[in-house]
Amino acid sequence: MTVSQLLKAHSWPDGVEESSGMERLLRKCQIRNQLVRECLAECLGVYVLILFGCGSVAQVTTTQDKKGQYLSINLGFALGVTFGVFVSRGVSGAHLNPAVSLSLCFLGRHSWIKLPFYIFFQVLGAFLAAATVGLQYYDAIQAYSGGELTVTGPTATAGIFSTYPADYLSVWGGVVDQVIGTAALLLCVLALGDQRNSSIPHYLQPVLVGAAVLVIGVSMGSNSGYALNPARDLGPRIFTFVAGWGVDVFKAGGGWWWVPIVAPCVGALLGTLIY
Amino acid sequence: MTVSQLLKAHSWPDGVEESSGMERLLRKCQIRNQLVRECLAECLGVYVLILFGCGSVAQVTTTQDKKGQYLSINLGFALGVTFGVFVSRGVSGAHLNPAVSLSLCFLGRHSWIKLPFYIFFQVLGAFLAAATVGLQYYDAIQAYSGGELTVTGPTATAGIFSTYPADYLSVWGGVVDQVIGTAALLLCVLALGDQRNSSIPHYLQPVLVGAAVLVIGVSMGSNSGYALNPARDLGPRIFTFVAGWGVDVFKAGGGWWWVPIVAPCVGALLGTLIY
Amino acid sequence: MTVSQLLKAHSWPDGVEESSGMERLLRKCQIRNQLVRECLAECLGVYVLILFGCGSVAQVTTTQDKKGQYLSINLGFALGVTFGVFVSRGVSGAHLNPAVSLSLCFLGRHSWIKLPFYIFFQVLGAFLAAATVGLQYYDAIQAYSGGELTVTGPTATAGIFSTYPADYLSVWGGVVDQVIGTAALLLCVLALGDQRNSSIPHYLQPVLVGAAVLVIGVSMGSNSGYALNPARDLGPRIFTFVAGWGVDVFKAGGGWWWVPIVAPCVGALLGTLIY
Amino acid sequence: MTVSQLLKAHSWPDGVEESSGMERLLRKCQIRNQLVRECLAECLGVYVLILFGCGSVAQVTTTQDKKGQYLSINLGFALGVTFGVFVSRGVSGAHLNPAVSLSLCFLGRHSWIKLPFYIFFQVLGAFLAAATVGLQYYDAIQAYSGGELTVTGPTATAGIFSTYPADYLSVWGGVVDQVIGTAALLLCVLALGDQRNSSIPHYLQPVLVGAAVLVIGVSMGSNSGYALNPARDLGPRIFTFVAGWGVDVFKAGGGWWWVPIVAPCVGALLGTLIY
Repeated sequence: MTVSQLLKAHSWPDGVEESSGMERLLRKCQIRNQLVRECLAECLGVYVLILFGCGSVAQVTTTQDKKGQYLSINLGFALGVTFGVFVSRGVSGAHLNPAVSLSLCFLGRHSWIKLPFYIFFQVLGAFLAAATVGLQYYDAIQAYSGGELTVTGPTATAGIFSTYPADYLSVWGGVVDQVIGTAALLLCVLALGDQRNSSIPHYLQPVLVGAAVLVIGVSMGSNSGYALNPARDLGPRIFTFVAGWGVDVFKAGGGWWWVPIVAPCVGALLGTLIY
Repeated sequence: MTVSQLLKAHSWPDGVEESSGMERLLRKCQIRNQLVRECLAECLGVYVLILFGCGSVAQVTTTQDKKGQYLSINLGFALGVTFGVFVSRGVSGAHLNPAVSLSLCFLGRHSWIKLPFYIFFQVLGAFLAAATVGLQYYDAIQAYSGGELTVTGPTATAGIFSTYPADYLSVWGGVVDQVIGTAALLLCVLALGDQRNSSIPHYLQPVLVGAAVLVIGVSMGSNSGYALNPARDLGPRIFTFVAGWGVDVFKAGGGWWWVPIVAPCVGALLGTLIY
Repeated sequence: MTVSQLLKAHSWPDGVEESSGMERLLRKCQIRNQLVRECLAECLGVYVLILFGCGSVAQVTTTQDKKGQYLSINLGFALGVTFGVFVSRGVSGAHLNPAVSLSLCFLGRHSWIKLPFYIFFQVLGAFLAAATVGLQYYDAIQAYSGGELTVTGPTATAGIFSTYPADYLSVWGGVVDQVIGTAALLLCVLALGDQRNSSIPHYLQPVLVGAAVLVIGVSMGSNSGYALNPARDLGPRIFTFVAGWGVDVFKAGGGWWWVPIVAPCVGALLGTLIY
Repeated sequence: MTVSQLLKAHSWPDGVEESSGMERLLRKCQIRNQLVRECLAECLGVYVLILFGCGSVAQVTTTQDKKGQYLSINLGFALGVTFGVFVSRGVSGAHLNPAVSLSLCFLGRHSWIKLPFYIFFQVLGAFLAAATVGLQYYDAIQAYSGGELTVTGPTATAGIFSTYPADYLSVWGGVVDQVIGTAALLLCVLALGDQRNSSIPHYLQPVLVGAAVLVIGVSMGSNSGYALNPARDLGPRIFTFVAGWGVDVFKAGGGWWWVPIVAPCVGALLGTLIY
């Protein structure tokens, strides 16, 4: 970036004519560098979110509720979002969620060209965080599951990483659940963002977004684990696929895996529209 | 509103004489539009409050305390109020409660003419939110109750939506409970509002009002579910009445339904007087 | 107060000579009025603290942990203190605790003459709040205890109102427990107050004092219920004495009642000294 | 310090020549006094942290989860850190953790010469706090353990003071666990500190650092008790060694004691590097 800045400083007085080829290249470079920084920030932000979020599920699952309970999981994801936003918003604006990025593109507040890069790095961050949780809880998962990595059954551990529907939930019920949840999330986040213009200091935004995730967790979590975020669900699911849980992670729950990818996008657009 | 503003801008220099008929109509229009905006804000605010509040009861009830406990419900209503206030206060001042609107009318801080509109839209918001929770937890309620929507008994689910007294509670005990609870709420809210003039930044008000609802929930919730709000209780009760729970929702608890409508109004006036 | 202010305004230009008798009387009046206002503020502040605090114990006790748990009680007292401070600090500075008032007298920050008035109204506020909780939970206590108001035994209910030591606790252990707890409280409160001079906005002070009470509740609550406050314990104990629990409330725990009165005062002075 | 200040004031106009011997001595004195003040602040800060943190473990352990649960312990350590930082940061910057002090030395933000003093007083503060908790819970520990102070077994109480690994955890698993946990802590703290330059008011820093400890506790606590801090673990372990638990406190868990000393230092450096 320094080179490109130097060039800019240099080319300013000289006019635009001779800077055509070289500068265009460097400008692209700068954009790409800026994009790289944003993508890494998104990656790190989602990493922090999933590290704390899935970590709390691992703790509650492997200790059979002795060292935590469902409320701990709600706090894990809520504060995971808070610190994920703290870590990344200075650079990328802290979307941390492909459904949010998509909505902002529809609103014209984000460029469509950046969208696939953002999504890729969000999913990558979630994958890496799931791998870290898998490493940190390796002994615990082995002890709890007796060494068998299963997706369903009494000592299933795939639910530590990605979401699965409750037994009673129909696919349509799951879609409705995810659409409502993500719409509620967007409604809260946009309301906070609106206030921001006038009044909420931006150092409180991450805390209040975390509170929104907390309240959604205590009120909309039991049907299918409030993924609300395609990256949060797909990244860890790919990790479980490659790390030994196998193809069941895509088959379980009647091929559930696509619901927390598609439904949050629909919900996010709906929430944005309502707002 | 833009038309009326244009008119104002136009009629200012010209004097008042010729603007009589037309302007009076437009002013009414503007008032009505302003009132419509306020009513929609109240409706959306109560919607958010009940969506999160009743959602948390649905989660705890249908999972039999496995994915949450009473404290989750307290948090659901507390943060529901917080985000309900965030969503609506810019437009309507965020009463979110007919008993609060009534008290403000008595204090002369709110117009009596607006009161019935506010109340109607508050109840409507609660009704729509209950319908949303009913939709989102449709499968869960069916599975938990075995398909029988009952108001009392071991798998009763009407309590997800509106409040019912504990078995031991007499009607007078319930009235006293609701009067004390609502008076305590008003005392806290008015104390916070008083501080506002001097010191509490208004972006913290919704959080602290939520904290007041939290502490009332942990200390005054077990007798009859701390409705404290006629709209919070009546809207969802009407939903359960039309959605299959039937006339029992009005009969249960010795015809309990009128208590969380009348007693909070008495309590709110009492709290206002004490303050 | 207005009369005295008028007098002041009047006597300013005229000199002091002729205002001797009359003014002295009015000044006394004003002081007394000011004292009355401060005493009422302390009374209301402690009332709010005990209403929420003892209310949460009542809820957890009479529902046998079904609608709350020990953490709810910790939150009840913590937020009780927060709102008690919000309600009273503008007028009286929000001591809410005879041990705190005593320490401030020793530090020379509060007048010794006011001390007995402060203490009386603090105890009165706690008594009235206990009576309110007794009224609100009348049916619940009757149902839980089978109508027998006992201080010890499986359905004891005196512990809703004032503190009793755990079975294992010796009297000296209880004194040590209360001294350490109150010293820790004062250390935290004085540290926050010190910061106040430079930095903590005063609207956050009540929240952080509540957080101090929360952490003491989760870390020093099990031995003897973290009274830490002579008024918090004595007022409700007197209520239980007159309301049907009888003289046992003073006999139980080996004549425990004096410990939460004397030990917090020692602890408060110790905490002040350390600081 | 006043003498040295006087000297400075005096020597300013006179030049530097004659102040050589005397002033050098006094300057040393001042530095040493400054260092003493910083060391005492670190000692008091860690004392507060451990008093609340280990106190909450003592409460949950000796009441067998009746007066608290794992979440209470998470809150105890989180708010312990918050108030520990409030108490000490004005003087010493509130490291409260040898691993943090070490990282700051590597970053060049702290002097290597001060490091051993800081570490000694951090461990001392933890030792004294453990002794206080041991005193406050003496009766409780005697009653719970039947008077036998054991490190392992059904009524083990050594875990109140320092951390021990879960049965399933290998030593390498423990090292990985502590490295990841401390790296996550440093990442959050440095992110908050970074924001501080621009935006987070410094009165909120202690609260947000406490929130970071809370989320690590709910998501990384079950493997080996999230020591993350050599002083937090070694000080109380020495206390248990001398207070009757004996040499088992160093033998248990396959000689576990060195892991929470070494691994957090590695993790802190790793977290600093990543950031």
